[in-house]
Amino acid sequence: MATIIDGKKVAEEVLAECAGEIAELKEAGITPGLAVVLVGEDPASQVYVNSKVRKCAELGIHSEKIVLSKEATQEEVLETVQRLNADPAIHGILVQSPPPPQIHEEEIVRAIEPAKDVDGFHPENVAKLALEDSTGFVPCTPAGCMRLLKAAGVETSGAEAVVVGRSMIVGKPMALLLMARGSDATVTVAHSRTKDLAAVCRRADIIVAAVGIAEFIGADFVKEGATIIDVGINRVEDASAKRGYRLCGDVAFDEVLEKAGAVTPVPGGVGPMTIAMLMKNTIKAAKALG
Amino acid sequence: MATIIDGKKVAEEVLAECAGEIAELKEAGITPGLAVVLVGEDPASQVYVNSKVRKCAELGIHSEKIVLSKEATQEEVLETVQRLNADPAIHGILVQSPPPPQIHEEEIVRAIEPAKDVDGFHPENVAKLALEDSTGFVPCTPAGCMRLLKAAGVETSGAEAVVVGRSMIVGKPMALLLMARGSDATVTVAHSRTKDLAAVCRRADIIVAAVGIAEFIGADFVKEGATIIDVGINRVEDASAKRGYRLCGDVAFDEVLEKAGAVTPVPGGVGPMTIAMLMKNTIKAAKALG
Repeated sequence: MATIIDGKKVAEEVLAECAGEIAELKEAGITPGLAVVLVGEDPASQVYVNSKVRKCAELGIHSEKIVLSKEATQEEVLETVQRLNADPAIHGILVQSPPPPQIHEEEIVRAIEPAKDVDGFHPENVAKLALEDSTGFVPCTPAGCMRLLKAAGVETSGAEAVVVGRSMIVGKPMALLLMARGSDATVTVAHSRTKDLAAVCRRADIIVAAVGIAEFIGADFVKEGATIIDVGINRVEDASAKRGYRLCGDVAFDEVLEKAGAVTPVPGGVGPMTIAMLMKNTIKAAKALG
Repeated sequence: MATIIDGKKVAEEVLAECAGEIAELKEAGITPGLAVVLVGEDPASQVYVNSKVRKCAELGIHSEKIVLSKEATQEEVLETVQRLNADPAIHGILVQSPPPPQIHEEEIVRAIEPAKDVDGFHPENVAKLALEDSTGFVPCTPAGCMRLLKAAGVETSGAEAVVVGRSMIVGKPMALLLMARGSDATVTVAHSRTKDLAAVCRRADIIVAAVGIAEFIGADFVKEGATIIDVGINRVEDASAKRGYRLCGDVAFDEVLEKAGAVTPVPGGVGPMTIAMLMKNTIKAAKALG
């Protein structure tokens, strides 16, 4: 039976580290500040934004939640970002994705001061990740996955890792982190065009699943003893559930349990780590910006 | 027996395209211009720089070869780059690597105007490559490898590609190009920490060798029918050779010939492509800058 990697517990460890660092910063007269910009009323985005703001409050990070109307123009969003760039009380800025269709997201991301880009999506930080320059910000989800691997005692050096998915939010940064010097995994990036994905995954000592398809990674994808990090969060209709749906990952959790060495659950795996790493990035920004 | 992929011939095709594009640009009153900055007297660097300048002359690209003394300061190199950034006759700038030890190369690369960074090493262009933004410059060697695959009629979509080496000059950009939408290969990046590299390579339909070790990739690394792109250029002592050495790649060419489906020779494979893609990038810069 696989070990279940407890993302909540690891996130608590990260947050405890954060608390110590925040106390030190406050002694030096610095209160880390995070601004979260939400454009429109997407219910899922509201849930994410609120949980980020709540976590800031718990930790003693100053936070600002800025809600622009769903009709906001590109200029209004850009002006908001520029105001936050110039605000010395704000060390981290993120614009919740996805914005409404009239907003050109890439331009917004580019407008964020790279030193405040705690999501790690600015080209400056994308490049630093590729160049293995540790002064940049690593996107929170892949950073959280790396931390889970470390917490679970998984040796990455020389390990075969398969990342399923090639997005710039998870797949590619995850691959870059795993192949970087110090991590030293042999990394395969697989995706929708991969032939015999199950066979490719069966080579893996470490699988990172970021495909966005509920319970896609079944037992036949898993080598005996492999570690599986499940990045997916999918809603599946479930009449027996109170809300009419249940949350599940990209991994068929029950099915892989007997084969895998370790696996993250959904919820309670990568999810809590993402928010913890956002706090970590905000503190890193505050330390650098002072 | 493997097909030998004739890099010289493919490079000639690229250069013929370049000639047509240059003629069009000249009709529009634009002569593409490339500046090559050489710091110091490294003999290999001089050979590379001279061959770039010569190719420009053959094509009718304006070129400037700027040689700074090996004692040049960081400020002198930066001033040279800034002058070239501002020079409307120059569309492409490259600083030949490696510079002498007193020069901080990364800062020099960052000083180059991204729109003139025809080597594709500026963080702005690194990020564009990762983000699959085709307005950026792709480093010349991996761009040349992709073109060789295309010319050889190799299907990348769904193919298993193994890139051996994880540098930012070849390995990582090559992996990003192969996994990008449109190329769609399943890409593994292997390196010095990879366990059983031969077995990993034997999975590959496409091997890109960029390890810098002479004739490292032997027949036991090769699946029947695979395509091998050899990025290495190594000097091996050879008493029978006029200069006392011979050039060879990272691939044991004679040994893999019977197993591979197609292979690039060294010299005459990737080498001529690198310089052809530099010309291509310079023309792209001239078109964009006008």
